[in-house]
Amino acid sequence: MDIQALVRDLKTQNKSKIVMLVADGLGGLPVEPGGPTELEAAKTPHLDALAKHGVQGCMYPVAPGITPGSGPGHLALFGYDPVKHLIGRGALEATGVGFKLGPKDVAVRCNFCTLDAKGNITDRRAGRIPTEESAPLAIKLREVKVPGVEVFVEPVKEHRFVVVFRGEGLAGNVADTDPQVTGVPPLAPKAHDAASKRTAEVAAQFVAGAQKLLAGQPKANGLTMRGFAAAPVIPSYEEVYGLKAAAIAVYPMYRGLAQLVGMTIVGQPTTLSEEIDVLEKAWNDYDFFFVHFKYTDSRGEDGNFQEKVRMIEQFDSIVPRITALKPAVLIVTGDHSTPARLASHSWHPVPTLLVSETCRPDGLTAFSEKQAIHGGLGHFQGVYLMPLALAHAERLGKFGA
Amino acid sequence: MDIQALVRDLKTQNKSKIVMLVADGLGGLPVEPGGPTELEAAKTPHLDALAKHGVQGCMYPVAPGITPGSGPGHLALFGYDPVKHLIGRGALEATGVGFKLGPKDVAVRCNFCTLDAKGNITDRRAGRIPTEESAPLAIKLREVKVPGVEVFVEPVKEHRFVVVFRGEGLAGNVADTDPQVTGVPPLAPKAHDAASKRTAEVAAQFVAGAQKLLAGQPKANGLTMRGFAAAPVIPSYEEVYGLKAAAIAVYPMYRGLAQLVGMTIVGQPTTLSEEIDVLEKAWNDYDFFFVHFKYTDSRGEDGNFQEKVRMIEQFDSIVPRITALKPAVLIVTGDHSTPARLASHSWHPVPTLLVSETCRPDGLTAFSEKQAIHGGLGHFQGVYLMPLALAHAERLGKFGA
Repeated sequence: MDIQALVRDLKTQNKSKIVMLVADGLGGLPVEPGGPTELEAAKTPHLDALAKHGVQGCMYPVAPGITPGSGPGHLALFGYDPVKHLIGRGALEATGVGFKLGPKDVAVRCNFCTLDAKGNITDRRAGRIPTEESAPLAIKLREVKVPGVEVFVEPVKEHRFVVVFRGEGLAGNVADTDPQVTGVPPLAPKAHDAASKRTAEVAAQFVAGAQKLLAGQPKANGLTMRGFAAAPVIPSYEEVYGLKAAAIAVYPMYRGLAQLVGMTIVGQPTTLSEEIDVLEKAWNDYDFFFVHFKYTDSRGEDGNFQEKVRMIEQFDSIVPRITALKPAVLIVTGDHSTPARLASHSWHPVPTLLVSETCRPDGLTAFSEKQAIHGGLGHFQGVYLMPLALAHAERLGKFGA
Repeated sequence: MDIQALVRDLKTQNKSKIVMLVADGLGGLPVEPGGPTELEAAKTPHLDALAKHGVQGCMYPVAPGITPGSGPGHLALFGYDPVKHLIGRGALEATGVGFKLGPKDVAVRCNFCTLDAKGNITDRRAGRIPTEESAPLAIKLREVKVPGVEVFVEPVKEHRFVVVFRGEGLAGNVADTDPQVTGVPPLAPKAHDAASKRTAEVAAQFVAGAQKLLAGQPKANGLTMRGFAAAPVIPSYEEVYGLKAAAIAVYPMYRGLAQLVGMTIVGQPTTLSEEIDVLEKAWNDYDFFFVHFKYTDSRGEDGNFQEKVRMIEQFDSIVPRITALKPAVLIVTGDHSTPARLASHSWHPVPTLLVSETCRPDGLTAFSEKQAIHGGLGHFQGVYLMPLALAHAERLGKFGA
């Protein structure tokens, strides 16, 4: 069933506000058998109070067993089938540095490398050249011109940068030029289909120009290209849900993902508290607010259980400022689990809480993985979260007579 | 979502071992209101100990309300969409007697029948002729030759036998020749499509030859053909999951089903204890082990609650030998429920337990239908079991960046 298509047909308008509060990597694991998860160890009086009025569930962002990256995890939360709308690596990397991709764009992740006198690769990552040395080189590459297309170059980190080609007749199905081994030259860009032929030619011209500019550079005198990807074509929040949506996030990646579905990026917050300042200020101007908190994931990725606990407590502390705004629907969730014990994203379902005057409370007393198992939302896939949000906001009409 | 396609793309390799322990027809029903199911009545200290460390759920092999046969039940456990990969009746029957079907084969279930002097059917099942009389007749039919194809004939039980045609240009879309009534002759084999025309001709030649050989036989002098089916084309475990898989089963049907997905049949055990001997011996040579225990289903089919309880207790007793091998993931499940009260397969969800160091324990204390309802795996479809197994074995990469 294409649930989004159904929702698109059933959407109605009212004045309700929906807040989706995403603690990145929220779900966790006990460190010791019988011990608490990070969320269970954290003191979360405000979330627990919400749990008493709301309804919980175990959410699989993609499907049971699947560990999502940030892209699929967020697209699922936003209600888009994450398999159908897979964002190519190049497009995600461009999005991650805040580049706004358009419909004529193909984005490519690039690595600086080092070449010997014969043009063979000696180091595929240019000795992981520090960002302060690679960024100026990437910016220098903006001088490379390719006739008939616009070229954008954005530094990323260390040996990585992004190139975006903008023009007519470009498609993204081009093979990586990184040969994955040293002692051979980078591969020529090769199109996998007829529609991508021009992209491969454009890429080859860019590489030729870039090599000239990099010749003689001591730290990085070559480049390889990976993950060619056209901008994904995704219908907007307004179109699908009839929602004027705002995104509030500190990190470019999440601002970028929100932008891909047509949310407006509001404010330039640098802390969670500033994010809530932005939320308060923008409250009257939007129907839907995506608020992203990064550090639960970061400390999980670090494998730091105690610090993830502390980040969850910090996250909990801002809840009263949100409830004071009286959203019709408040959702608290994550885009995936990041248990400190695994120090990585994981496949475990994400405890998810929906609070609304129209929800059917499930009698639970705290927001936690263990209680979420018994929640009224059951186990469900991420794409059902937006339909549930809209329904509880009374923004979905009846299906059939 | 095609979850298997996703898993196929995400699979990675490591040294972990996965054991899928299948108690056929495991799920049950109380005999009296408020009473225990077979699993709840059984003393299962080892499974209950596992439940404390693992995560349970209610598994629907196919979908809610659907009672699966052994074929779809096992295919689902193995992670193959059981509707998409439906095994034709002829192919299942051949598989069930241990016949290894190849890509050029069409298998047919046949019934011996009796014909009067005019060639009209007098008994469609030849009076349910005993196996000791029908098997020699089936073996006699191996003398029938059809030019251009190989013909195999295998006895089954009573009036049933299997014929396999092997050759070029054979497809399985041929109508049954059993007219379903007496007093008329068997129908001529009729192809439903052009690709199956040759099969119908081959079948007609076989029938003509067989009738000659059977002429004058007192108990069975004719045959009808049903459930024509080409060998199913199923991608292998190695291809889909990157797993070297072993199947350990006493009965030919389950060995055959495992073989269809490319598992290697190891050992020739005749008891559960011998199956575990085989498991121990093969432990270093495979990544995945399917271990099948038949008698929970058999006693359920008999309608014998107490004996099914005893079989579950026997099943429980071998668990320590498996855990001693320290599999990364141990799954305990069934291919469907077979409540003794119904004396047949049923649609009720199968209590399913997954134990792994990477699972998120759900606080349950015993392996049972009643507790499984509250398990951390929730209610889920069979095809998600393999993705969950691979994820917990850390054999699946991240989906998207």
